[in-house]
Amino acid sequence: MSIKPVLPELFKSGIARRMGKFTLHYVPYLLELKHVFTVASGSRTSTPVVLTAIEFEGFIGYGEASMPFYLGESHASVMSFLDQVDLSVFHDPFSLEEILEYIDGIAVLNTAAKASIDIALHDLIGKIMQQPWHKIWGFDSEKAPTTSFTIGIDTADIIRKKVREASPYKLLKVKLGLDTDKMMIETIREITDKPICVDINQGWKDREFGLEMAFWLAERNVVFIEQPMPKEWVDDNAWLTENSPIPTFGDEAVQRLGDVYRAKGIYSGVNIKLMKCTGMREAHKMVNLAKSIGLKVMLGCMTETTCAISAASQLAPMADWADLDGALLITNDIYRGMRIEDGAIVLSSNPGIGVAVK
Amino acid sequence: MSIKPVLPELFKSGIARRMGKFTLHYVPYLLELKHVFTVASGSRTSTPVVLTAIEFEGFIGYGEASMPFYLGESHASVMSFLDQVDLSVFHDPFSLEEILEYIDGIAVLNTAAKASIDIALHDLIGKIMQQPWHKIWGFDSEKAPTTSFTIGIDTADIIRKKVREASPYKLLKVKLGLDTDKMMIETIREITDKPICVDINQGWKDREFGLEMAFWLAERNVVFIEQPMPKEWVDDNAWLTENSPIPTFGDEAVQRLGDVYRAKGIYSGVNIKLMKCTGMREAHKMVNLAKSIGLKVMLGCMTETTCAISAASQLAPMADWADLDGALLITNDIYRGMRIEDGAIVLSSNPGIGVAVK
Repeated sequence: MSIKPVLPELFKSGIARRMGKFTLHYVPYLLELKHVFTVASGSRTSTPVVLTAIEFEGFIGYGEASMPFYLGESHASVMSFLDQVDLSVFHDPFSLEEILEYIDGIAVLNTAAKASIDIALHDLIGKIMQQPWHKIWGFDSEKAPTTSFTIGIDTADIIRKKVREASPYKLLKVKLGLDTDKMMIETIREITDKPICVDINQGWKDREFGLEMAFWLAERNVVFIEQPMPKEWVDDNAWLTENSPIPTFGDEAVQRLGDVYRAKGIYSGVNIKLMKCTGMREAHKMVNLAKSIGLKVMLGCMTETTCAISAASQLAPMADWADLDGALLITNDIYRGMRIEDGAIVLSSNPGIGVAVK
Repeated sequence: MSIKPVLPELFKSGIARRMGKFTLHYVPYLLELKHVFTVASGSRTSTPVVLTAIEFEGFIGYGEASMPFYLGESHASVMSFLDQVDLSVFHDPFSLEEILEYIDGIAVLNTAAKASIDIALHDLIGKIMQQPWHKIWGFDSEKAPTTSFTIGIDTADIIRKKVREASPYKLLKVKLGLDTDKMMIETIREITDKPICVDINQGWKDREFGLEMAFWLAERNVVFIEQPMPKEWVDDNAWLTENSPIPTFGDEAVQRLGDVYRAKGIYSGVNIKLMKCTGMREAHKMVNLAKSIGLKVMLGCMTETTCAISAASQLAPMADWADLDGALLITNDIYRGMRIEDGAIVLSSNPGIGVAVK
């Protein structure tokens, strides 16, 4: 390496722990949202994240945990999880299978905290190999799909404003699942006929109603439905998938690798998110598994900085759909890396996850 | 790179084709076996292979196709397949998903020919990243299992000789499926009580007989049974797996990625071989898929030089069992790389597939 990388200022107010050849840094941070964001389960104006960095032999890898309140993790839980991490028994960051098995075993759940280690290690290793992960995984960056732009549940006026804001995007993702569903779609259709996908977030509570809505939505150029009914309603979701004119995707039902196999026959595809599945390594396995058994793949995100979004976007060339606009919705991103240009995902050719501090 | 690699002499008698930034070399070669080798389907004293090399910007990656006669490929078919390969439209060897999809589409079957390109590209890319593939894939080389040593169908005298030859090995793999099965096992048990695995190569033609044999074998410390009955006998193999006291592995039944999912419920595990599945990329996907759905993984090989064996052994840390003795059975190997020491697989830490010309 020609120039030794320097740790960003922000990390100096956080924790730094030396553990053998590794130094792990972690610091809580609050992402400010541009708009109040409402989904079927609640509203929010900010999202807590924890930013991580792992130093090893002159290289620094960056990671992130994002904790939207409805997923059960928080600054406190992630900081406490990271306090327990001890990498001192490992001598080589390349031993990801072994290291991440150890990380996964520290506690159940805590998937965002686990992802913050997984992403930082991937970034580190990619930098050592001087290649971005989409290349290491053998993907062609040109194959990345366009990303959708997300519109939360809102009033007609705000929706009109957001649709205009989303003009560069070729696909709108609309959050449904309350009694304003038809109003929202009709409001958007007054302005634009571009394709829409909808995310019900388990909001429909009756399968006949769901099927009726599926037909109504399909007639309005809605291209797929995400998590229509509660994830526990296996037979109802399977019935809807079989009868729906447009594909369904499991999201809340699909957290980790084992859930992909179980999703076959229940949904048309799976929504894979780093914060649900513990990170890039498991996400990569999930993408391969889904493709192998004939499930469609969607890549999703939480509200995240460009760090975690750039990590997820390494898999974008293998996705049928991508919903990686999480960093566009915040005002205080500290990273640059993957970009969105006219709705298209543009991968950074820089090594690792391809990010740099702004 | 400090020293430009030099192409081995052997390739000078073969074909060399410049295609854009790539040069593809391929040459037929005949592997001489130390012993006449007999399985349920026939005997042989040599195995034809085609050795490949791909040059790209000063790097050289090595590959190999091995064509035991019973699999339908030959010097002529592999050379003819490779004549059709045109890499000139590709600018970056890292785009494996795209390049190998093109290779796979050139013709049906021809899996060994396809593997000879896949392996050479992996070797090339690993050399560019200066890391061996087991590290790039995140595996710990220490986790590689011991390999079995294969004993073909033979007379009691030759079997006794081979068992003594196999003294460093901790697991014997015995080819069964003819009416000499019990004699062979009893002959081995006169000399050693070390664990045995058996490969029936579809030789059993009755499931009740198969189950009786499974119990008889289990009592004699046989630890698993490979491809007991014809692969088309799905229900019979599933019944045997359900009732057998020891695990079964599908081999002839499991060629490619799609077969892994279908093997669930029929066999306890799958035998993955580069020459059946088109190479390292698909084999890696198959290992991940098998592990994800609860199937055991065995890595197998044909009679091959240390080139293809070293390529397969990059996956060994993820295998429950390995049968990677193919290069030990020949007298004219031209490569060194992965080694077997006292039955243990010792991975080379050199980049790519870790081989060098002797």
